[in-house]
Amino acid sequence: RYGYFGADKLDAVKLLFCNVSGCLTDGQSYLSATGEEIVSVNGRDVAGVRMLKKEEVEVIFLSSSDDPIPKALADKLSRKMNCKIRQGVQDKQAEVKKIVDARHLMWKEVAYLGSDEPDVDCLSLSGVSGVPQDAPTVALNAAKYICRSPAGRGALREFAEYILLLKKKERSKLEQDRIGRDNF
Amino acid sequence: RYGYFGADKLDAVKLLFCNVSGCLTDGQSYLSATGEEIVSVNGRDVAGVRMLKKEEVEVIFLSSSDDPIPKALADKLSRKMNCKIRQGVQDKQAEVKKIVDARHLMWKEVAYLGSDEPDVDCLSLSGVSGVPQDAPTVALNAAKYICRSPAGRGALREFAEYILLLKKKERSKLEQDRIGRDNF
Amino acid sequence: RYGYFGADKLDAVKLLFCNVSGCLTDGQSYLSATGEEIVSVNGRDVAGVRMLKKEEVEVIFLSSSDDPIPKALADKLSRKMNCKIRQGVQDKQAEVKKIVDARHLMWKEVAYLGSDEPDVDCLSLSGVSGVPQDAPTVALNAAKYICRSPAGRGALREFAEYILLLKKKERSKLEQDRIGRDNF
Amino acid sequence: RYGYFGADKLDAVKLLFCNVSGCLTDGQSYLSATGEEIVSVNGRDVAGVRMLKKEEVEVIFLSSSDDPIPKALADKLSRKMNCKIRQGVQDKQAEVKKIVDARHLMWKEVAYLGSDEPDVDCLSLSGVSGVPQDAPTVALNAAKYICRSPAGRGALREFAEYILLLKKKERSKLEQDRIGRDNF
Repeated sequence: RYGYFGADKLDAVKLLFCNVSGCLTDGQSYLSATGEEIVSVNGRDVAGVRMLKKEEVEVIFLSSSDDPIPKALADKLSRKMNCKIRQGVQDKQAEVKKIVDARHLMWKEVAYLGSDEPDVDCLSLSGVSGVPQDAPTVALNAAKYICRSPAGRGALREFAEYILLLKKKERSKLEQDRIGRDNF
Repeated sequence: RYGYFGADKLDAVKLLFCNVSGCLTDGQSYLSATGEEIVSVNGRDVAGVRMLKKEEVEVIFLSSSDDPIPKALADKLSRKMNCKIRQGVQDKQAEVKKIVDARHLMWKEVAYLGSDEPDVDCLSLSGVSGVPQDAPTVALNAAKYICRSPAGRGALREFAEYILLLKKKERSKLEQDRIGRDNF
Repeated sequence: RYGYFGADKLDAVKLLFCNVSGCLTDGQSYLSATGEEIVSVNGRDVAGVRMLKKEEVEVIFLSSSDDPIPKALADKLSRKMNCKIRQGVQDKQAEVKKIVDARHLMWKEVAYLGSDEPDVDCLSLSGVSGVPQDAPTVALNAAKYICRSPAGRGALREFAEYILLLKKKERSKLEQDRIGRDNF
Repeated sequence: RYGYFGADKLDAVKLLFCNVSGCLTDGQSYLSATGEEIVSVNGRDVAGVRMLKKEEVEVIFLSSSDDPIPKALADKLSRKMNCKIRQGVQDKQAEVKKIVDARHLMWKEVAYLGSDEPDVDCLSLSGVSGVPQDAPTVALNAAKYICRSPAGRGALREFAEYILLLKKKERSKLEQDRIGRDNF
């Protein structure tokens, strides 16, 4: 009743990995006869990334080599949002593991927004994992959180709000721990 | 029963503020690999702006500095509809207050169609305030009217019709007042 | 029981008027920062126009001066479908009346697919009139047929099938009339 | 109970025909005033084609001469997915028959994803046939499988998963046959 003598370090998400195609974008790739390739992002999702960064959650975009979005366009998207991007990722788990280790993080401090079969391992390993509402079944089954919003139309924003809510909860738990200990 | 001896000045909306991204547009920003940026507007919403102007409601568009729509494009949109636009607005409440004061209006004569967190103050202050059906929760909670249409697909049109309906009601009330007084 | 001695001329639709913005297209107008303007049409709707022409129903597109679609683009759309187009139409009823008279048709031989307030008169006068599912209330109220498909995504196709069904019914009625008379 | 002494050759789909407009794409064709023509594909559908090819199901795209998508663009789409394409196909049944015969296949080894009236014969003849959720009634009636996803937003992916599921079932039946015979 005086609080539990738990962790004294904040146990919340510090890093979000997010697929470009089918998470940040709706997966649509527009092609013109003259060779232009176009993708779209939603202002709500861009705002979600900003909200995360303000609360010190780093956001890294992932683009697999299979992605129908060309490299230049993915680069542009990530620069627009002032985030890092890893392109041509064949083995997502290996790539994510490398980044997580380099930052001395644990999987439970990692959030992952994925969209398809190649994301399944990361969705299972990450502390917080989500998929857009319109993801294929294989991804839906692996995720811990299924967004009500579809890809490219608010899913990333919704997932960002979910992460920040969890973070707030963790913080208030940590504060209660301290109160508990001080009162003792 | 002979009418009430109320206001003798029309107490209706004279000015509508409307966000560009997520209100006039659906929030989608299309990017091409060669650097083109594209947004879309709906004919119904454009017609809504025309309806308001015909009934002497001024329409001013707002674009925050965070908006994923570049300045040139927002300018183009507002010129297309023959409306003023304020761009790079950081503090929406301050900007709106300045314009409202310059026109010697009161907040209850102001309508506001917003889409996200930065609009919350204005949504609360304005006499008539609305958000598109697909706005984030924080905006939905602050608005007095929630459109059934989503952003960029009729929300502005619907809100315009709502404003004009209120205006018509106010006008008939004012006329009834006059009838009441004349009969006295 | 021997058929009724009714009309002996086919009493069906011979001419369809269709709005460009909000009927043929979904009303969205895409704008790029460099000045490109883009609209979209659906293959199902294009097929619907072809079906009508095969059954000798002429299709004429209407574009009001308020249309957010530029003249060149509307021209292109109508050429693509090999149909006539009237642009910059301010008074739709007058324009349609002129064409109907020139072809010695009656209003009941005219079908009209409209999308908004300027179409209301024509929707009331035409023998067969429709609006897409997502039209504003003022148009919904004036139409005799409300499509289940939204504008630019099958509404024109659906309306075309409805016209052809009516035509088929009329024809079989006419044939029954003849049978009745022959038997007499 | 020891298995039935059935076919000993795998009786599953070896070839998928898929319409470009209204199956691979959502049927929307975007036109710019300057003459650009744009169509879109979804990453999920592209992944579905890859899944089929990995399991040795060939994918051939069909584009009728009526297609609102220009030849160059359809070529581009098929190259992007590394598949063959037949363009300007007037008589789909004849074209498909020719290809099926050349590969010494039977209709029951053929899958067909169609979208409209010209596909009806092939939908009836093919062993496995499907249409997107938003296809016109005439196509819906002819198909054996109606996708829950609409055209250009997952219908092809869903149909691919359905084909692979059937293939897996066939294979396990074949294996059970062998077990049955060995035990005898």
